[in-house]
Amino acid sequence: MDEQNLFANIPETLDKELFDTLATGNNVRIERIVSRGQSSPAQGWYDQISDEWVILLRGEAVIAYPNGREVTLCEGDYLHIPAHCRHRVQWTDPNRATVWLAIHYAAAMQP
Amino acid sequence: MDEQNLFANIPETLDKELFDTLATGNNVRIERIVSRGQSSPAQGWYDQISDEWVILLRGEAVIAYPNGREVTLCEGDYLHIPAHCRHRVQWTDPNRATVWLAIHYAAAMQP
Repeated sequence: MDEQNLFANIPETLDKELFDTLATGNNVRIERIVSRGQSSPAQGWYDQISDEWVILLRGEAVIAYPNGREVTLCEGDYLHIPAHCRHRVQWTDPNRATVWLAIHYAAAMQP
Repeated sequence: MDEQNLFANIPETLDKELFDTLATGNNVRIERIVSRGQSSPAQGWYDQISDEWVILLRGEAVIAYPNGREVTLCEGDYLHIPAHCRHRVQWTDPNRATVWLAIHYAAAMQP
């Protein structure tokens, strides 16, 4: 029950994106991601087996989809990315840390 | 995949805390909570069947436990509250909105 802070321990420089798992449960993982100008993956698309709910809490970023759609995310913006919805981080602000909180989880079972 | 903003649609006044479910999955629920000076529950303690991971993203609050421990949460502070860990929101800042993001989930199964 000890509290920690999402915005603590952010490196001044980053060679690549930083991923930290903050909590895990049964089919759920809560993760902090810090970017400093990185895009990801370097080539191709993310194609994830889990659903992801992601919120941008510092900085700014652009998410892109294979159909050409791009979405700019600012502080507080959140997205649900269903499993196997291909996407990539097209851009993050190179001048400051972009901090994300991502929840990876299994979709609800169909009745 | 449409984005929304966690800090949008916050009422100027609130008679009681505001709870909005933002996403649900298999044994997971992502919820926004907005408080304006409320404490909760009004009497007694929360005693939840699920684990909760909660982060305070605006405002300020104090969480209390039955053993007398109190934890002040500021922007970015997060806590894991295991199922059946009794707790209550002792205080929230009456002068501004306190915005929480809570993830309710099932603990990992024991091997």
